[in-house]
Amino acid sequence: MHGQFLEIAGHIVFDADRGAKVDLLRGSTLFLGLNTFEPGQRQAPHVHHGTDKFYLLLSGKARMIVGDETRDVVPGMLVWAPASEPHGVVEALERTVMLVGMAPPPPA
Amino acid sequence: MHGQFLEIAGHIVFDADRGAKVDLLRGSTLFLGLNTFEPGQRQAPHVHHGTDKFYLLLSGKARMIVGDETRDVVPGMLVWAPASEPHGVVEALERTVMLVGMAPPPPA
Repeated sequence: MHGQFLEIAGHIVFDADRGAKVDLLRGSTLFLGLNTFEPGQRQAPHVHHGTDKFYLLLSGKARMIVGDETRDVVPGMLVWAPASEPHGVVEALERTVMLVGMAPPPPA
Repeated sequence: MHGQFLEIAGHIVFDADRGAKVDLLRGSTLFLGLNTFEPGQRQAPHVHHGTDKFYLLLSGKARMIVGDETRDVVPGMLVWAPASEPHGVVEALERTVMLVGMAPPPPA
């Protein structure tokens, strides 16, 4: 994949039935995407072995869990889920958009 | 490093003499930090072999180059510099803050 300039706003979609995922950029060592949630939607806690992951809240508000800590996350906050640490979205409190990064990339 | 919740705003610093770098989070496969620039400051084009990198403009405006493309980047834009692709900041046009991610992490 070549270098590029990408406007996030043009890639945001929501799914009325469940939290939605959007692939943005996939390299050999790093993946970036979006996770979007309507209010009340969630992402069950899960683990990625060997993969560090972050979320950056871009808009909205969501109750998130990493390890044994739960916080209400707002724009400008990073959520860091290092390899093997359980993490998830307990519940979106508003319509929420998160940038997500994973290294290495998950299976396509 | 354990999971954590981090407010980016509390970590922003500027250097009057040159673009500044701040380490935020460093895992086994992924690094996150900030690059900050006063107007007119720059980051010489450079290459990371084997390392994918992104910038996300959080505030300000900067003229950036990736490969042979130059763009004026504003908040909400991702700049994707995959492994071996030259990239840099030609010039910050305003006081600018960027989130930067690299996989794998650069030397500490």
